[in-house]
Amino acid sequence: MSKSERLIFLPLGGAGEIGMNMYLYGYGPKGKERYILVDVGVTFPTMDGTPGVDLIMADTAYIEARADRLEAIFITHAHEDHIGALGLLYGRLGVPVYTRKFTGAVARAKMEEHGQDIDRIEVIGSYPEMVELGPFKVGFMPVSHSIPEASGLVIDTPKGRIVHTGDFKLDPDPIVGEAYNPALYREIAKDGVQALVCDSTNVFSPLAGRSEAGLGGNITQMMKEATGMVVATTFASNVARLKTLAQAGVDSGRSVVVLGRAMKKMLGYANFAGLIDNFPPTLDIEDARDVPRENLMLLVTGSQGERRAASAQLANGKYLGMELREGDTFLFSSKTIPGNEIGVGRIMNSFSEMGVKVIDDNGGMYHVSGHANRPDLEEIHGIFKPKMLVPMHGEHRHLRAHAELAESKGIQAVIAGNGAMVDLGGDAPKVVESIETGRLYLDGKQLIGAYDGVVLERMRMALRGTVVVSLLLEDNQQIGESWAEVLGLPETDSNSPSLQETLEREIDGELSGAKRNLLASDEQLEKLVLRTVSRVCKDLTGKKPVAKVLINRLVD
Amino acid sequence: MSKSERLIFLPLGGAGEIGMNMYLYGYGPKGKERYILVDVGVTFPTMDGTPGVDLIMADTAYIEARADRLEAIFITHAHEDHIGALGLLYGRLGVPVYTRKFTGAVARAKMEEHGQDIDRIEVIGSYPEMVELGPFKVGFMPVSHSIPEASGLVIDTPKGRIVHTGDFKLDPDPIVGEAYNPALYREIAKDGVQALVCDSTNVFSPLAGRSEAGLGGNITQMMKEATGMVVATTFASNVARLKTLAQAGVDSGRSVVVLGRAMKKMLGYANFAGLIDNFPPTLDIEDARDVPRENLMLLVTGSQGERRAASAQLANGKYLGMELREGDTFLFSSKTIPGNEIGVGRIMNSFSEMGVKVIDDNGGMYHVSGHANRPDLEEIHGIFKPKMLVPMHGEHRHLRAHAELAESKGIQAVIAGNGAMVDLGGDAPKVVESIETGRLYLDGKQLIGAYDGVVLERMRMALRGTVVVSLLLEDNQQIGESWAEVLGLPETDSNSPSLQETLEREIDGELSGAKRNLLASDEQLEKLVLRTVSRVCKDLTGKKPVAKVLINRLVD
Repeated sequence: MSKSERLIFLPLGGAGEIGMNMYLYGYGPKGKERYILVDVGVTFPTMDGTPGVDLIMADTAYIEARADRLEAIFITHAHEDHIGALGLLYGRLGVPVYTRKFTGAVARAKMEEHGQDIDRIEVIGSYPEMVELGPFKVGFMPVSHSIPEASGLVIDTPKGRIVHTGDFKLDPDPIVGEAYNPALYREIAKDGVQALVCDSTNVFSPLAGRSEAGLGGNITQMMKEATGMVVATTFASNVARLKTLAQAGVDSGRSVVVLGRAMKKMLGYANFAGLIDNFPPTLDIEDARDVPRENLMLLVTGSQGERRAASAQLANGKYLGMELREGDTFLFSSKTIPGNEIGVGRIMNSFSEMGVKVIDDNGGMYHVSGHANRPDLEEIHGIFKPKMLVPMHGEHRHLRAHAELAESKGIQAVIAGNGAMVDLGGDAPKVVESIETGRLYLDGKQLIGAYDGVVLERMRMALRGTVVVSLLLEDNQQIGESWAEVLGLPETDSNSPSLQETLEREIDGELSGAKRNLLASDEQLEKLVLRTVSRVCKDLTGKKPVAKVLINRLVD
Repeated sequence: MSKSERLIFLPLGGAGEIGMNMYLYGYGPKGKERYILVDVGVTFPTMDGTPGVDLIMADTAYIEARADRLEAIFITHAHEDHIGALGLLYGRLGVPVYTRKFTGAVARAKMEEHGQDIDRIEVIGSYPEMVELGPFKVGFMPVSHSIPEASGLVIDTPKGRIVHTGDFKLDPDPIVGEAYNPALYREIAKDGVQALVCDSTNVFSPLAGRSEAGLGGNITQMMKEATGMVVATTFASNVARLKTLAQAGVDSGRSVVVLGRAMKKMLGYANFAGLIDNFPPTLDIEDARDVPRENLMLLVTGSQGERRAASAQLANGKYLGMELREGDTFLFSSKTIPGNEIGVGRIMNSFSEMGVKVIDDNGGMYHVSGHANRPDLEEIHGIFKPKMLVPMHGEHRHLRAHAELAESKGIQAVIAGNGAMVDLGGDAPKVVESIETGRLYLDGKQLIGAYDGVVLERMRMALRGTVVVSLLLEDNQQIGESWAEVLGLPETDSNSPSLQETLEREIDGELSGAKRNLLASDEQLEKLVLRTVSRVCKDLTGKKPVAKVLINRLVD
């Protein structure tokens, strides 16, 4: 180990935001580091900032420029914000992808969907099994979370051991998957941990987290008291919760039907990974039609109010022949992610209009979080006793609070948002470079840069409407009349000429008064027309639309 | 009183939603009822469903068709969702507007802003003062809420007394304005209440509401512990909270500066109404520049993350020469309204990046709600002992829960969303007609109907982009080449011809192969071009844009 070698951590996504996780670790002389990439996730678009976009992910430009030095990719778990962009971006990365078994099944499906080679997915076991890759030795450290086989990473380097927690909670009885195992963590920590790179999502939750196992009783009680059919939703990938819900269904005398396709898929993967041998019996939808509704429990997707999911379809009417009625109960065994409140509220109100009783987690009875709360974070800090801590998986305020929490216990910490390259090799974490990072949008079929202007133009059209003017000229004189096509602007009241008429009249007036050499210049002519469009629209509608001018010149 | 006369309640806005309150009461023979209108509020647009819209309000068409039978308007309090459309819609209503003094000051400003006659605002006192209007006698019943002089209405009719609560909470010490007065309410109820029309906002909050007076100690303590400047935000109209915050500032040894313009206005109205004689001393911003920052407390607008408010401007840099620095504290003495989480989070993270400590109401220490919680609603039901209850001011699920709560205590209730006309004259509330209701959008300068299609077209452009094609024909043959203007669609990758080029080539190809009589028909030609645009865009981008065709025909 030369003194000039450095151990770096570079978040490309997921730091300063919750979503699109992508973290790069590097080791070697500056400019010659070997890399491993952790997670290739997505974040979801909003009408507010990214209308029409399908998915958002971190820009891989920094890695692509150093692709020959990338050893491998590790996926910590199969949540979309950690694995969702794997198939989309794999063509730009092209190295082996290490996962555990359940995550590997999901990863293969993601690769296949985008025409990538599924054999690049390498399934390995958990710590103490480790893979040697250049200067790194890496192993999966089991954690409990809200999806099976979630894992942190133990990353050994010439400058010491790094523990990357991934998303985690401390659950002694997670129903499916590995329980919180402090003995294993102590074993991992026993020779010292150079750096802990740690989930920050729930740093503002002041009470210790609760166990998945605590929910079954509440949910069973609720389902026993329910008079009609019960429909429950949660994240499809939360296999433990699916089991908790299904078991509660059975225990309350109901036949359980898994309706959501995404849920069926996840149960299939969990089955393949050997994780749910004792899942309660379920009924096919075809056989459920004869069961009295008070003896039925449906599991459906759409806990976040997604417009096309089963919950939304049931809120609008039928789904796969099933229909909710007055006296039925709908349970959100989930938390509403910030930004989804209005969509979830819409569904709740539709159910309310049908006379369906809606139960959510307002009272904390029917859901537990998959992330470590503040006291849990303190417990983990205490177990790993790292020399330094780098908070990840949080907005800036989460990272700050987590860094402050660590420092209050004497652990050196640094706040590193996306693009902040942190040197982990010394006695304290230090930001040594600032890398330009960005986002890629999947927009229909194409990956585009967030700053390409395409989405900005769409937002402008949504806010201000659009006017396109077509002109015809010959010998630098207008032929006929202009045509102004107006999109998304309100009409004038019925007593006045229409906006289109006024625009065309005013443009023709300006053109007839304009000098010949102005009309000869596309640039000046365009400027004149744009100015006229702005003025007329501002006057009549109060808005300045996005405007384009099509100048057609007749040439013989 | 003839048997054919009826007493009706018709929500036009605010029932089945939280926002744009507008309620109509009628009395008389069917088709000849005399009316009073309660509240003329707005709701706020979102990028999600109403991009580019400025304000949303209830459609007054039903009232306009019966304008000669409208006696008066009553405004319960000066929150935007109760008064915000008064100036905009007054031209369609044209009857006297009754308010109390503080609300009257706000109402006059709204009228003036839209060129309406401010003398139509009639300021009256509170119950037992009552105004006689046709079959009604109406008085303002003081309630506590989060704005001064909030009021319910006592509405006497030949079929009995109605109590319309407006927005209310039960606060024995609201700091500014009238305290909860059960003795007065018992007095109002003593001869029987035919119907209670009641706020439902907080029906899902299981614990009794807390008093504004309980906040001062917590906030003062927090401000004493803060090391730098403290900046606090809340709703500008929450004059009691402004006082609580200012007093805490003074008590923690700080000079208080009111920065937000909306706050200054509200304090001015409160002063005019004689409500804040004992407001703590404040400093002008000019004089604050010499005060050490640890002795300063600023009051600013923007508790909901509004992009143009003081809080957002401070998050981006300077506002009126003031700037936040590392070590300062920013307090959200407010609740984030659903839908605003992302905007508020954005500001919190900007402050966090500056090193500013952000405190919100997560722990319930620095804010109390202005609405009655579930036990408070039960208390009010118990005091008024109405024959029937109609829940208002809530989404459908709130109305349902409130109706169920009333019925569990033996009070007849009905769920009446916007447009459900309820007969209040019998022994139980009964929906007797269903009226078509709608929404009006203020879009720039114009009021447009929600279903005019203008906003829908803007949303389509935002989701799918836009293509406008211009064609020139002479003698039913294309002259030159087509022009396809592409807005908000991603470009093809750089190795292929651009989307615009491909569109134009394909359109020209289709046109050159088309029969002369197809080209002669605008309709068929348009169809052909639209089909081509859809096909090419779907192929290359995966999207089907909003498309328009401009057909120019040369005629000699």
